[in-house]
Amino acid sequence: MIARTPAPPYVAVVFTSVASGDAEGYAAMAEAMDALVAGQDGYLGHESARADGLGLTVSYWRDEEAALAWKRVGAHLGAQRLGRERWYASYRVRVATVTRDHGP
Amino acid sequence: MIARTPAPPYVAVVFTSVASGDAEGYAAMAEAMDALVAGQDGYLGHESARADGLGLTVSYWRDEEAALAWKRVGAHLGAQRLGRERWYASYRVRVATVTRDHGP
Repeated sequence: MIARTPAPPYVAVVFTSVASGDAEGYAAMAEAMDALVAGQDGYLGHESARADGLGLTVSYWRDEEAALAWKRVGAHLGAQRLGRERWYASYRVRVATVTRDHGP
Repeated sequence: MIARTPAPPYVAVVFTSVASGDAEGYAAMAEAMDALVAGQDGYLGHESARADGLGLTVSYWRDEEAALAWKRVGAHLGAQRLGRERWYASYRVRVATVTRDHGP
């Protein structure tokens, strides 16, 4: 469940969202996006959790270009629009460069 | 619930954990650390969610020095040790520099 990322540097995109309460179609779209992102060039993995209406998804990428290319994929653009219009009361996207990591 | 961070650059520490199933003392410690971190120099906020045993906490800092100083606070070192020994089956810490962000 923890993404197996390579040695830094690589890119992390932190997506934080507050659910609107209207989740119609969300689960199916999330599943479709999970399947689609897995085949993206430069995709390294992602981690996700949602509790008490707050969602955190961190996706990992080889570089900023790979992260930007995913942002621009047609089906993903549609998902982003539905997110803004329907599923999320608010959200924030932060693009970051991972410089160090550690764990057991 | 979404942290109000300043314009980039700033530092994000992504802490991903898998729960061990032994949560004794965890809630009280999490509450104590929430109170303690709020007073740390350079602390900008944090976001946290746990679902299906996977936890994600992203904390935001003015710079790497501020993030490192928090890592070394005595009470936090004790919490980290209990995490490794008791609460987490696995975890990963990633330190990143946020270069861009956007949202509504």
